[in-house]
Amino acid sequence: MIEVKEEILADNNQVAAGVRERLGRQKTLLLNLMSSPGSGKTSLILKTAEALQGKVKLGVIEADIESRVDAEKVAACGIDAVQLRTGGFCHLDATMVTQGLEALPPKDFDLLIIENVGNLVCPAEFDTGAHKNAMILSVPEGDDKPLKYPLMFSICDVLVINKIDYLSLSDFDLAALRHRVLALNPQIRIMEVSCKTGAGLAEWTDWLAREVAQFVGS
Amino acid sequence: MIEVKEEILADNNQVAAGVRERLGRQKTLLLNLMSSPGSGKTSLILKTAEALQGKVKLGVIEADIESRVDAEKVAACGIDAVQLRTGGFCHLDATMVTQGLEALPPKDFDLLIIENVGNLVCPAEFDTGAHKNAMILSVPEGDDKPLKYPLMFSICDVLVINKIDYLSLSDFDLAALRHRVLALNPQIRIMEVSCKTGAGLAEWTDWLAREVAQFVGS
Repeated sequence: MIEVKEEILADNNQVAAGVRERLGRQKTLLLNLMSSPGSGKTSLILKTAEALQGKVKLGVIEADIESRVDAEKVAACGIDAVQLRTGGFCHLDATMVTQGLEALPPKDFDLLIIENVGNLVCPAEFDTGAHKNAMILSVPEGDDKPLKYPLMFSICDVLVINKIDYLSLSDFDLAALRHRVLALNPQIRIMEVSCKTGAGLAEWTDWLAREVAQFVGS
Repeated sequence: MIEVKEEILADNNQVAAGVRERLGRQKTLLLNLMSSPGSGKTSLILKTAEALQGKVKLGVIEADIESRVDAEKVAACGIDAVQLRTGGFCHLDATMVTQGLEALPPKDFDLLIIENVGNLVCPAEFDTGAHKNAMILSVPEGDDKPLKYPLMFSICDVLVINKIDYLSLSDFDLAALRHRVLALNPQIRIMEVSCKTGAGLAEWTDWLAREVAQFVGS
């Protein structure tokens, strides 16, 4: 069993490195967005598209086990999007991402966002080929999640804490959360947002715009 | 790949059937509780233990990828509990449950609750040997989850909708959720609760007490 897994991971790492290199040459930044189900991945993508409109050419690769509801939501806002149906698979691997890249219209994208399958476990183990990894933790999920899903917090460049409008109803301890996350990953950027009220979103979109500008200009 | 998966599933089904049969002879009802991270599995178990105290001999098998925080919380309330660390695995299988059963003190339990790994995808694919499967969906996760994680909703006997105290802050549509769930699984029981305020919990604990009484008396 373990050998099989190691082989799968080694093959995947090779495909992922190829994706990263190819998109790097094309000056397209690939961002992998992960979270539990319902933390707000699609909402954050829609808010990001709104803020970066006219500044960044954005495409989206949606992954879902069964439905196409997310791609439909995103496409309805005029964003180039493809839906990958994983057919029961609990994460995206780099081969699936390659299929998504081929299905997108042939445009000069500055930024492609992958919305991974809603899952705090498996997506953390598979390199998608992304240049940056970001995760969302929403306030109702609780501040103990870094203790329980440490790999996900360890591999991300950015943690977006979403639904801070729920803080008043919750015993979520932001200081404890920050402490737990930084113990796992001292380099991670932590941002507090509410996709519903718009609070804090400028920090996220400013960071992303800067990353894209650096990448495109590099 | 697919063959390997089928073999794993076939082996697991055999172990699961053995667990179910053995616990059936011992008149111990095994309940498998599943949800996304942070939906309230541990909170529901603590509330259940409180309500059934003195009536039902309860034990808990906690599963987590890394930490022991849940088992510590449960044991602190005087409940017999073991913690299974899956070491990266994204679900419990019947062999892991067997290890959990062996680690529990040798008592005449009426009810054993498995708290599965927080994940709406993989745990739905693996029979744990439980007699009943229950899931929690919490209001902040959104009413579209049956569209996106249909297998989980299809295999459960009970859906507990938790955190209904968040409904006032949310656009969660209870009628739409019920409609989507029942389209997948017409037999499922749906209960609305708040582990924080206690609302609706009696329906859950009454149902569970009845199921245990029937099982023990059968």
